[in-house]
Amino acid sequence: MKDVAHRAGVGLKTVSRVVNGEPGVLPDTEQRVREAITALGFRRNDSARTLRKGRTATVGLVLEDLADPFYGPLSRAVEEAARGHGALLLAGSSDEDPVREQELTLALCARRVDGLVIVPASDDHRYLEPEIAAGVATVFVDRPAGLLDADTVLTDNLAGAKEATAHLIAHGHRRIGFVGDQPQIHTTTERLRGYREAMAAADLPVRAEWTALGTTDPGRVEHALRAMLAGPDPVTALFTGNNRVTATAARLLAGHPRPTALVGFDDLELGELLDPPLTVVAQDAALLGRTAAELLFNRLAGGAAAPRRVVLPAGLIPRGSGELPPHS
Amino acid sequence: MKDVAHRAGVGLKTVSRVVNGEPGVLPDTEQRVREAITALGFRRNDSARTLRKGRTATVGLVLEDLADPFYGPLSRAVEEAARGHGALLLAGSSDEDPVREQELTLALCARRVDGLVIVPASDDHRYLEPEIAAGVATVFVDRPAGLLDADTVLTDNLAGAKEATAHLIAHGHRRIGFVGDQPQIHTTTERLRGYREAMAAADLPVRAEWTALGTTDPGRVEHALRAMLAGPDPVTALFTGNNRVTATAARLLAGHPRPTALVGFDDLELGELLDPPLTVVAQDAALLGRTAAELLFNRLAGGAAAPRRVVLPAGLIPRGSGELPPHS
Repeated sequence: MKDVAHRAGVGLKTVSRVVNGEPGVLPDTEQRVREAITALGFRRNDSARTLRKGRTATVGLVLEDLADPFYGPLSRAVEEAARGHGALLLAGSSDEDPVREQELTLALCARRVDGLVIVPASDDHRYLEPEIAAGVATVFVDRPAGLLDADTVLTDNLAGAKEATAHLIAHGHRRIGFVGDQPQIHTTTERLRGYREAMAAADLPVRAEWTALGTTDPGRVEHALRAMLAGPDPVTALFTGNNRVTATAARLLAGHPRPTALVGFDDLELGELLDPPLTVVAQDAALLGRTAAELLFNRLAGGAAAPRRVVLPAGLIPRGSGELPPHS
Repeated sequence: MKDVAHRAGVGLKTVSRVVNGEPGVLPDTEQRVREAITALGFRRNDSARTLRKGRTATVGLVLEDLADPFYGPLSRAVEEAARGHGALLLAGSSDEDPVREQELTLALCARRVDGLVIVPASDDHRYLEPEIAAGVATVFVDRPAGLLDADTVLTDNLAGAKEATAHLIAHGHRRIGFVGDQPQIHTTTERLRGYREAMAAADLPVRAEWTALGTTDPGRVEHALRAMLAGPDPVTALFTGNNRVTATAARLLAGHPRPTALVGFDDLELGELLDPPLTVVAQDAALLGRTAAELLFNRLAGGAAAPRRVVLPAGLIPRGSGELPPHS
C-alpha cells in the first residue's frame, strides 16, 4: 500500500479510500491511484487484518430457502445489522433438510464466521457445541434450537393461530380445516396447537380429516384442500399454516364454486387486492431478522449472560376472506 | 483430527463425516466422536485447505436488495450452482447506490471470493480491473457492466417492453403511460426505449407527461400515476417498468373509478388472482441466476475466452388487465 501511495504521489489515506470504494477522492487522483494499483498488482486483503483481531467480520445466515419471499426481509435486516458492524453475510438454504442444515452450518463455521443466525431445519443442534464453546455467537430465529440452550427469537405462533381460528369461529364457522407445513417444523406444531386450543375453547370437535400437514408443494396442498372441501360435510373455513400454503389455497378458492372463508398465517404481497381481500395473521419478518442480529452482536460485544428468548407478536389483519359467513 | 480419531477409537474417515455433517455414522459412534471433539477443542478449518488450492470456494453476490422478491429466486439459483461446486455465497445489497456497490464489491474481493455475480448499480466498473486481472471471475447479471468488458447475462428488456406496449396498442389504446424505475438503471432505459419504439411504430405520439421515471418508493409512483390518470386527456393504459412499480399501480387502480389497462414488467405472486388478473411481461429470475453462475464457473474452470453476453427472452402473459379496452 505504501508502494502504491508512493507511485501515485498521494498519501496512504487516499489509497485506502480508493481501495475501499469510499467517496472523497478527485477523479484524477483516483485514476492515478488505480493505475499504480494495476501496475503493482496490489489487492486489498482483509484476511490478515481480521485474523489479527481474531474475528472475520462475517456472519452466517442459514434459512430454509433464499427464494421464499418470507425470508427476503429477514435476510435484508440481518445484512443491515451486520453492515452496521462492518460485517458481511454468508447465506444459504437448508431446504428443510436437517443434513443439509448441518453441512451448511459446519461449512460456515469452518470459514470461521463470527456468528450464526439460523432458521433451523434440524431438531438436534448439539453439533454446534464445540463452535459455541469456541466463541461463535449463535442465534436461532423463527424456530428454537434442538437440545441446545441458545439465544432465540420467535413469533408467538400459538397466540397468532388461536386468534386466527377464534376469528373464524366468531364469524359462525364450526367446521374449520387447518392445512400446514411439515409436522417436524416447530412453527407448524405451534400453529396446529393454537388451532386445536381455539376449537376446544369453543367446544368444537376437530375431525381427523380437518387437519393436513405436509410439504408446501402446491400439488400436495391442493390435494389436501380438495379433500376438505369435498364430501357431504365440507369445511366452511380454512386456516392455512404459512405463506406458501396460503398462496395455493387462494388460487384454489378463486376457482371454487362455494365461498369458503380463509385466514392465512403470514401476509402475502397483493393479498389485500384479492377478491375477497385476504385476511391474515401477519408476523414481521424484518423485525425477526433485526432482533436476531441485535442478540448476535450483543453477544459478540461480550454479553456472557444466559441465552435469551424473545417472542414477537403476530397480529390479525381482517380484510374480507376471514369474515365470510359459513355457506349453508 | 488424528487425535480425535484416536480418542474416539474410530478412523479418520468417520471423524471427517461427523465434522462435515455427512450421514452414514451410527448415533453411538457420532456421540463418541463429538465427545472427543469437545474434549480436544477441535474445529474444522477450511482456510488452510482453501488457501492451499488458491481458492476460497466462496462466491460474492451483489444485488440491489435482498428483500426484493425478484432477487430471491436469482439468489437461490446462484446458491445452488455454487453448492454444486462446493462453494458458499457471500451476499449483499447495493441499495441502488454506486458507492455502496463499490464498497461491498471491494469488501468481497478483499475476502478473496473466487468469483462475483453482480447486479450493478454503478456505471463504471473499472475499479474491478485489478481484481479480474488477479483471477476473480466476474459476471454481471440483469444489467451490463460499465466501462468494462465482462461476462453478462441480460433479459431482452427492449423486446419485452415493445411487446407489452404493442399489446396495449393492439387493444385500442392510444394514450399509454410508462412509469419506470430510476433513469440511470439500464433496465429502465431499455424498457423506456421499447415503449417509445412501439409507440413510434404505431405512429403514436408520446407526450412528456406520459412517462415518469424515479425511485420505486410507493409515494413517488402513486403521485406519478395520479398525474397521468387525471386531467381532460388521461392515459387509458399503463405500462409499469418493474415489479415494485406494478404492485403500487395495481393497488391504485383497484380503487380507481375508471378501468385502466395495465401491463407490468416482471410477474408478481398472486398476480393472476387480481381483478382483473394481471397481464405481465415475465422474465425468469432463476434462469438469470443459473446462467450467470454457469458462466462464472466455466470461467473458473479455465475458460479464457472473450467475455460472453447472453440475452434471455421475456414473454407476455395475457391475463386480463392488459386486455381491457380504452375507456371512452
